[in-house]
Amino acid sequence: MEPRISLITLGVTDLPRAIRFYRDGLGFPTKAKDDADIAFFNTTGTKFGLYPLDKLAEDISPSTPTTRSQFSGITLSHNVRQKEEVAQVLALAESAGGRILKPAQDVFWGGHCGYFVDPDGHHWEVAWNPHFPLAADGSLIIDG
Amino acid sequence: MEPRISLITLGVTDLPRAIRFYRDGLGFPTKAKDDADIAFFNTTGTKFGLYPLDKLAEDISPSTPTTRSQFSGITLSHNVRQKEEVAQVLALAESAGGRILKPAQDVFWGGHCGYFVDPDGHHWEVAWNPHFPLAADGSLIIDG
Repeated sequence: MEPRISLITLGVTDLPRAIRFYRDGLGFPTKAKDDADIAFFNTTGTKFGLYPLDKLAEDISPSTPTTRSQFSGITLSHNVRQKEEVAQVLALAESAGGRILKPAQDVFWGGHCGYFVDPDGHHWEVAWNPHFPLAADGSLIIDG
Repeated sequence: MEPRISLITLGVTDLPRAIRFYRDGLGFPTKAKDDADIAFFNTTGTKFGLYPLDKLAEDISPSTPTTRSQFSGITLSHNVRQKEEVAQVLALAESAGGRILKPAQDVFWGGHCGYFVDPDGHHWEVAWNPHFPLAADGSLIIDG
């Protein structure tokens, strides 16, 4: 098994709303129209998909629950190049219909971060991390 | 905002168990030892992290629940180069302590897929998708 996550798929309760949030609000590139059955986004590195929550659950197995608790136990992070971009991205997410859970702030490990949730309550961290530089294409460089 | 997910972090209830599953079981590269406080994996594309669930929730806000429903509404996909690798990766995940939810099978959109959960119940799809070729480094190529 080669070490990679190829695609992240979020299950959503209102697919057109979710497409508009990511495509129009955050500017993620996709060919998906509002009435798409599924949406794929051409993100750098791991790709990103949106699919109705009930269909995503059914794709796993008929017994997968279609209800989610308030916290999935998963965070998706978007790392930025400059410290001041953290607040800018949080403001963009809010203007697109997201909700800020943690405003941009300095944090104990030396970075500057905040969190928002998308319209379905999926958690995103926005982070400036001086320990993890960004490659030219925006990918994180982790000496892991 | 540039279109990318930099890092995926899974909240886990037993960090050494999770590190062993991904590092020793699946072979994901990391410098993290069993007693690490957090683990980062040098995956191709988006990076991958493990952190205690309660600390991940606290990092978002003190009011974030630390319990998860059975389905987060998020799937992480690992795409393979050859159809027969789907069953091989599922078997590897099972031998490492995961649980197969959907054995390798042909699916309606023309691919060959299965699902497993890791020891914390996070959902992984293993997929061979003839519509999404893999680049030399293993990244998905999506005409999105």
